[in-house]
Amino acid sequence: MEVRMVAEREHVVIVGAGFAGLQAARDLAGKPLDVTVVDRHDYHLFQPLLYQVATGKLEPQTAAYALRRIIRKMPNVNFRMAEATGVDLEEQLVEVSDGPPLRYDHLILAVGATTNTLGIEGVREHCYPMKTLEDAERMRDHILACFEHVSAHPQARDIEASLTFVIVGGGPTGVELAGALADLIRDVLDEDFPELAMEDITVLLVEALPHVLSPFEEKNRDYARRSLEDRGIQVRLETALESVSEGHVHLPDDEVIRTETILWTAGVRAQPLADRLGLKQVGNGQILVDDDLSVPEHPNVWVAGDLAGATDPDGDPYPQLAPVAMQQGSHVVRQIAKRRRGEPTEPFQYTDKGIMATLGRGSGIAELPIGPSIRGRLAWFAWLGAHVGFLVGVRNRLLTVINWVYAHFFRQRAARMIIRGSEAPRATPAEDVESD
Amino acid sequence: MEVRMVAEREHVVIVGAGFAGLQAARDLAGKPLDVTVVDRHDYHLFQPLLYQVATGKLEPQTAAYALRRIIRKMPNVNFRMAEATGVDLEEQLVEVSDGPPLRYDHLILAVGATTNTLGIEGVREHCYPMKTLEDAERMRDHILACFEHVSAHPQARDIEASLTFVIVGGGPTGVELAGALADLIRDVLDEDFPELAMEDITVLLVEALPHVLSPFEEKNRDYARRSLEDRGIQVRLETALESVSEGHVHLPDDEVIRTETILWTAGVRAQPLADRLGLKQVGNGQILVDDDLSVPEHPNVWVAGDLAGATDPDGDPYPQLAPVAMQQGSHVVRQIAKRRRGEPTEPFQYTDKGIMATLGRGSGIAELPIGPSIRGRLAWFAWLGAHVGFLVGVRNRLLTVINWVYAHFFRQRAARMIIRGSEAPRATPAEDVESD
Repeated sequence: MEVRMVAEREHVVIVGAGFAGLQAARDLAGKPLDVTVVDRHDYHLFQPLLYQVATGKLEPQTAAYALRRIIRKMPNVNFRMAEATGVDLEEQLVEVSDGPPLRYDHLILAVGATTNTLGIEGVREHCYPMKTLEDAERMRDHILACFEHVSAHPQARDIEASLTFVIVGGGPTGVELAGALADLIRDVLDEDFPELAMEDITVLLVEALPHVLSPFEEKNRDYARRSLEDRGIQVRLETALESVSEGHVHLPDDEVIRTETILWTAGVRAQPLADRLGLKQVGNGQILVDDDLSVPEHPNVWVAGDLAGATDPDGDPYPQLAPVAMQQGSHVVRQIAKRRRGEPTEPFQYTDKGIMATLGRGSGIAELPIGPSIRGRLAWFAWLGAHVGFLVGVRNRLLTVINWVYAHFFRQRAARMIIRGSEAPRATPAEDVESD
Repeated sequence: MEVRMVAEREHVVIVGAGFAGLQAARDLAGKPLDVTVVDRHDYHLFQPLLYQVATGKLEPQTAAYALRRIIRKMPNVNFRMAEATGVDLEEQLVEVSDGPPLRYDHLILAVGATTNTLGIEGVREHCYPMKTLEDAERMRDHILACFEHVSAHPQARDIEASLTFVIVGGGPTGVELAGALADLIRDVLDEDFPELAMEDITVLLVEALPHVLSPFEEKNRDYARRSLEDRGIQVRLETALESVSEGHVHLPDDEVIRTETILWTAGVRAQPLADRLGLKQVGNGQILVDDDLSVPEHPNVWVAGDLAGATDPDGDPYPQLAPVAMQQGSHVVRQIAKRRRGEPTEPFQYTDKGIMATLGRGSGIAELPIGPSIRGRLAWFAWLGAHVGFLVGVRNRLLTVINWVYAHFFRQRAARMIIRGSEAPRATPAEDVESD
């Protein structure tokens, strides 16, 4: 009898609990459907704050939130921690890494994006990506380990490479990371390592396009570049990487930069799951969807967030932003309801929430949907407010504010510690050279 | 000329930045000596809170504090992140893992203790120790992964083993961990996993002695045992482990407990460095010291904290507690000053600060140096106050209080997430069995 009751309710499987998937789960809570959220982690990650984890400003547990804590309040929603390895579209099954597949009546694919090496040789082996909490922690530990390495080996041959930090990619992620890294060095590490001269430290941002912050207006792009340069960051525009090798970045015209630290923010592509579905892909591997976000010929399969190959009415892809993902998550839930009622579905329409980026402590840019764009300290406060507001949970908000106050007024980094083990510079350290 | 100036000041090397080493560094700050603190981590770990990291109550960054942040305020103190691998007592050199050795005039050894497997077969391979931050995070991730595993495989054969948590060792560490684990399960996981029945979960504390909490008075030991039992923890006294194998704890009389989780708090011994010095060792590998804490025949080598094989005037070893370590760190610094002035040294005398332990949320025991011992809620508050007070840094204190309030009133665990990757139960999960 219980089996019959379960069978009578339609089952929605949401794959991925990022901004899109979690929003869909929230909107499905309390509806007469059974819902299962599948994610390989047991937490929701607030990706826009990853660069703060990578620079020791936030501990990882503040940029993440336990999924079961959210989902336990939704009686019709279950959580399954697993990696989704494939989808059988005919049998309507989601295959998972460690158990029997999950049957669905409606499927919401929202696994998001991963790092894109852009086919450049050596990127996978020698660069530090920043898409997961683990990535960000590894980046933080490595940056700190470089300073410890130089402090321990002041006469070593590779000091210059150990103190050269190259950020590849001048999009919002690369720009925010560069600003935060420059702050970490100037506010914290300069005092922690009094034996190091600041002028020996190089932070270099490399971007292939002729400007940073492509999604922003031209005057703001210029403002951003100048702000970064004012913080001592070298910005190289129109510079595409040729390749990366151990301890080296190869630029055009045989230019080589020696560095132990290449932070990769240059590209994203759809998670590998997208390649295993036999569906048409667009852009950087995103799944092609109709304008209602359903997959052509599979009206019960929906895609939301960074994985969705959707375009706006002008035919341009949507920006890969949290507000887009959340609106798509909600849209998909509304369309599932329409389909179940036999009504026609509607195209997805994005309500622009504006874009923001920080440029380091006390500086930012915000382009809001109405009014002129704002810059500098006011934009920075707007960024703080918006991001604290979007964080899940009162505790995380409170801790984030405390950590930011701590960083801003005391110029400290609460999470400035090598926690996962010291990944010393990757190149074999040169032997200490006795001073002649 | 700079070389001569450096050579003229005597150099103190402190190996280990736990309670003893850090206290010694603080007391040496501003003195006319050069000081180098060597530690394999770049943070000071507040060990008494490790069990809260292991049960998701605190994030690791709150139980630790960046050493360079403390040391930067001490102009004559330097930090060297490295593993000390040996000491050449004749040449007065501390050998480190990754560079030339450090010369010392005075040496303070304070590397503390590590896990002691007590020679029991299988402990190293199959138990989770809790001596480092990494240990505590691995323990937390494994405990949570066991619940995820059972939730994902409700029909698997190994459910009972996945929901049996064995804590070996009924000392303060084991008792505090058992209480915190029972709270985590009752307050958080019971609601996060509504499909699990609480009565299927077993928390078992195994102790070889006829009582828990040896350092405490008999009436308090009994109180502690009853308190743990009231929380649903099974307490097995006078039960020494025979051996451990994958998925099994072997007890006397061929009794076998099936479990995927063996949390090991049964013993500590001196860090392996102690075995490489060619010095006389006592107890669990501690270095034998004279009553002034110097090493016999090496008057410029001192030992403080858990590594010191010192005895009180009655000939009993000192308890391995933070107050003992801190007082020994201070004592050693005073004796170095006396020796430099040619004065006779003094024996170490411990000023008893009392002992405390928690027994889970809202319950504890405190035996203070004066007055009757206190128990229950008052002792729990005393424990909170003392531990917040001893934490390094205003931010860590504030965050700890927020996390505790969050845990106490909202019955939540801020850091209840699998961060380092899901260590699913170690035994190969049985295949899901179709219900017949």
